[in-house]
Amino acid sequence: MVTITAIEGIPEVSPGDNLALLIAASLRRQEIELEDDDVLVVTQKAVSKAEGRFVDLETVEPSPLAIELATTWEKDARHVEVVLRESKRIVRMDHGVIICETRHGFVCANAGVDASNVPGGALMLLPLDPDASAQRIREGLQRETGIDIPVIISDTFGRPWRTGSTEVAIGVAGMLPVLDYVGQVDTHGRELRATWICIADELASAAELVTGKLNRVPAALIRGYAVPRGEGSAQEMVRQAERDMFR
Amino acid sequence: MVTITAIEGIPEVSPGDNLALLIAASLRRQEIELEDDDVLVVTQKAVSKAEGRFVDLETVEPSPLAIELATTWEKDARHVEVVLRESKRIVRMDHGVIICETRHGFVCANAGVDASNVPGGALMLLPLDPDASAQRIREGLQRETGIDIPVIISDTFGRPWRTGSTEVAIGVAGMLPVLDYVGQVDTHGRELRATWICIADELASAAELVTGKLNRVPAALIRGYAVPRGEGSAQEMVRQAERDMFR
Repeated sequence: MVTITAIEGIPEVSPGDNLALLIAASLRRQEIELEDDDVLVVTQKAVSKAEGRFVDLETVEPSPLAIELATTWEKDARHVEVVLRESKRIVRMDHGVIICETRHGFVCANAGVDASNVPGGALMLLPLDPDASAQRIREGLQRETGIDIPVIISDTFGRPWRTGSTEVAIGVAGMLPVLDYVGQVDTHGRELRATWICIADELASAAELVTGKLNRVPAALIRGYAVPRGEGSAQEMVRQAERDMFR
Repeated sequence: MVTITAIEGIPEVSPGDNLALLIAASLRRQEIELEDDDVLVVTQKAVSKAEGRFVDLETVEPSPLAIELATTWEKDARHVEVVLRESKRIVRMDHGVIICETRHGFVCANAGVDASNVPGGALMLLPLDPDASAQRIREGLQRETGIDIPVIISDTFGRPWRTGSTEVAIGVAGMLPVLDYVGQVDTHGRELRATWICIADELASAAELVTGKLNRVPAALIRGYAVPRGEGSAQEMVRQAERDMFR
């Protein structure tokens, strides 16, 4: 059996907060002792807040392109400007949405720039290096608890063809994010067709069942799934350009 | 807490098998009594097998297009022919992969036609109407147990931009697959950006943590997640053409 437990009672996160300490304190209050087969999933919002990844709209000078796009779609040109700055490639622009490739290589709407769940007029950006964010939480938890468990940083991404967003992994530490069945055979001795499973994304989606969007639960503990351990990176989840038919 | 339990001991499924009866028997053996907040996830492979969704390659006469494509990519022209017959639109063809829109409207590789986990030279197709498959299992389980729980039929789909496949929902019964946060506000009183969450896909991905690919577990029970009940359909998960930037 796999269990997914909400890590509750974490206060509103502020820049400079040590997420590992906050999470360790919540675990103690919930009387949860970490185990070797646990995985911790932390939402991007909590990480970006702790890392102070905010941009004050008042400080943003929009480019002519940002002004042009914003006028067409009745948006705030400064918001569009921040999206463009966070992008290394524009994949599509339509319906008032900019699908961007972020600096990390993730493809998502508006380069992950978010105005919800942020106080005042600020925008929230993705963590600079979500793998490093995950690694810091992993190390902090290990110092606090003595247990070394994998950590996933999750975010909510839309996708083509299907309605609604799902939760995906944008950073990992202490685990291999993609399970490799290559060369393994099924019960009929035939090689499997689906040979790569992105378990980091599946774990992120599973965690969303308890973190939700409105209940202010920034982290979840998944227990009982034998995550392949290793020093993996979210870069392993970025499809290589030459194998991507939808660039 | 949300729990995900493998439904174990289901024998190899054959055409004509009643999946609801097989699952109910396994639940009894595992001494699991269904509860109102349970969701059952059943893999497409089990459903397609029970429904006899096989095509014998020997009976397939490939079209000139199928022969052309098969020659280019060193594939079996009869296999390509079956993929084309299961498609209502070709989205992309490259790297020896055909990304198809299936008759149901799902976009996936090779229209879901699968040669793994199938005995002999047959190919396995997606269920004709996965919502109806889910509904039959739901009704059968209700007859057996007296409890009416939502049922999801899941399949393994790749996606653009990200490495590896994840599990998604291709059929639902007794639930609304997409959670709608429209008009709801966050803790700062601001409307949420991500207003639609595809919980059916997240539940399918969560279930994959126990069904896996090699362990012959065709179903999982998820307990403790308050699924919005209703007479939903997998069609609600198909992005409308006019809102799809990647057709």
